[in-house]
Amino acid sequence: MREWKKYIRKVTPYTPGEQPNKENMVKLNTNECPYPPTPKVDEIMNNFNTDLLRLYPSPDVGPLVRAIAHYYGVSEKQVFVGVGSDDVLGMAFLTFFNSEKPILFPDITYSFYDVWAELFRIPYQMIPVNEQFEINVDDYNIPNGGVIFANPNAPTAIEMPLESIEKIIQNNQDSIVIVDEAYSDFGTVTARDLLPKYENLLVTGTFSKSRAMAGARIGFAIGSEELITAMQNVKFAYNSYTMNQPAILAGVEAINDDAYFREIRDKIVKTRENAKKKLAEMGFEGTESRTNFLFVTHKTVPAKEIFDFLKSKDIYVRYWNKPRINNYLRITIGTDEEMERLYQALAEIL
Amino acid sequence: MREWKKYIRKVTPYTPGEQPNKENMVKLNTNECPYPPTPKVDEIMNNFNTDLLRLYPSPDVGPLVRAIAHYYGVSEKQVFVGVGSDDVLGMAFLTFFNSEKPILFPDITYSFYDVWAELFRIPYQMIPVNEQFEINVDDYNIPNGGVIFANPNAPTAIEMPLESIEKIIQNNQDSIVIVDEAYSDFGTVTARDLLPKYENLLVTGTFSKSRAMAGARIGFAIGSEELITAMQNVKFAYNSYTMNQPAILAGVEAINDDAYFREIRDKIVKTRENAKKKLAEMGFEGTESRTNFLFVTHKTVPAKEIFDFLKSKDIYVRYWNKPRINNYLRITIGTDEEMERLYQALAEIL
Repeated sequence: MREWKKYIRKVTPYTPGEQPNKENMVKLNTNECPYPPTPKVDEIMNNFNTDLLRLYPSPDVGPLVRAIAHYYGVSEKQVFVGVGSDDVLGMAFLTFFNSEKPILFPDITYSFYDVWAELFRIPYQMIPVNEQFEINVDDYNIPNGGVIFANPNAPTAIEMPLESIEKIIQNNQDSIVIVDEAYSDFGTVTARDLLPKYENLLVTGTFSKSRAMAGARIGFAIGSEELITAMQNVKFAYNSYTMNQPAILAGVEAINDDAYFREIRDKIVKTRENAKKKLAEMGFEGTESRTNFLFVTHKTVPAKEIFDFLKSKDIYVRYWNKPRINNYLRITIGTDEEMERLYQALAEIL
Repeated sequence: MREWKKYIRKVTPYTPGEQPNKENMVKLNTNECPYPPTPKVDEIMNNFNTDLLRLYPSPDVGPLVRAIAHYYGVSEKQVFVGVGSDDVLGMAFLTFFNSEKPILFPDITYSFYDVWAELFRIPYQMIPVNEQFEINVDDYNIPNGGVIFANPNAPTAIEMPLESIEKIIQNNQDSIVIVDEAYSDFGTVTARDLLPKYENLLVTGTFSKSRAMAGARIGFAIGSEELITAMQNVKFAYNSYTMNQPAILAGVEAINDDAYFREIRDKIVKTRENAKKKLAEMGFEGTESRTNFLFVTHKTVPAKEIFDFLKSKDIYVRYWNKPRINNYLRITIGTDEEMERLYQALAEIL
């Protein structure tokens, strides 16, 4: 065997949800937004001056950083922008988690955390959530090289109160604590409120869910200037220009149109609350979701059976054959019409 | 000091060329294309269905991978696409360069190579090019953990013949050899011709120069299926969706419109050949460029002085205050009109 084969980095990649492309499918499997982005994005795209494409974009992603900073009322130096929150989180792992002590995260959470840890050879320890899938704050009171959790957590959809988050941060003043808020726009507390008090706190967000822009690949982190500067340096040591011109320009429009954001977010929350009732009537039980998806199990019918049946009807939801959650489904909130098709299909199998 | 500060990754980031934005400036400093992308890109962008943005893009970048594979006559499994060739090269370093032996590259070359090596803590050894800035093939005949060089090299613009490239590969059958061909479209040999013979060869390219798409962030690598699969795995362990919808759709148009590509490439080559004569007449000496830029030094006036003077006239070229090349300028080939303004300004200072 040639020696170079020995030195290829071995990884077990993250498996993203399917991206099927069928007419009339109901796609409730990757937590995308069922509504299009703001019409302002249409305007920007359809009047796009393509001569812009011949030049490199602004390496500091200036216009988008400024728009995000303004929206969240923080300084520009507190904002990092990347190619989706996966790029932002991956960059954060590479930048911050270089201790020999393990980083900590829940055993049931976004399944990319252990993938990044393996990729960058960061030691890690998964902390089991309790039987109700809740994070126990005191479990994070052990020596560690960093802490990361999602709030609300995924795929459980459970929100942790701000006091609990703050307690984790207080107990971990020697570590960087990352709160992944991909879903916090759907009506939860935000750890951004704690930023003025803790310079070891990083809060990440995404345009992929509440801003209907998964296809534009925009994520961001907000933290102390010290943390953001460190991430910028690592980013500039990897790729000077990560955000392309369309993402920068469309992203600015998406963050600026707050009225549209609230409108679609409120619609999704309303549909979600209705879905909770409907599914409960059909014999589902689940967590108290504060996200754009539900995490449910059926009293009698196995999740895998429901998953397969729905798929045969071109209705896609998410199922993991993993310990503890292998009888659960994660169902993204779609439009009312899409949910109606889901209910009809469920009525058939139940 | 809080312990977390100790574990922040320390890096010296790459410094990209300035991206000034002045009216009437002549921007010859970052090797962008002076012509816009193909009108087909206009069409795609200006008829963009923004509802596409709410969905995640195809994680395998299918349409663009297929278009590139078709264009270069290779299998889809031999093509990796990333966010500019920096993303592609960075990912290649992370995937392939995990030996304890140093990787090798020229001392004068793209100044990102040592930045990636430092970022990922890869040992490296810079091999001096000769007095004419040429790579000596036999210098790469020492134990190593990988080899990377640009052909044509940057910022020297010098082309290495295919036989020399092949000799380096033959001498390094236990290493992965990466040939960075960011500039090979401007009339040089390509190491892609060697791919059928060597499974340890990876050749990278970009849409940023010859395809006028620096602002879209598209780069690619072509290699054996084994190398490409390894890179895909690492990519999927970092970010499932790196290429956004506009980049995928516009990229397909850019690679498919070969007639337009040849038209603007030929224009640039013609302007370059003319620029060589003009600058020689003005007392410049330089390498035999086969790229979209010239690497020149003046017989009497110091490069830094010329650089500063041009900048005061809003004409941007590139200068590095680095050993061996600190009396050279790298001048991107612009339109004939832009070059005329350059010649006029040079006439003033010389």
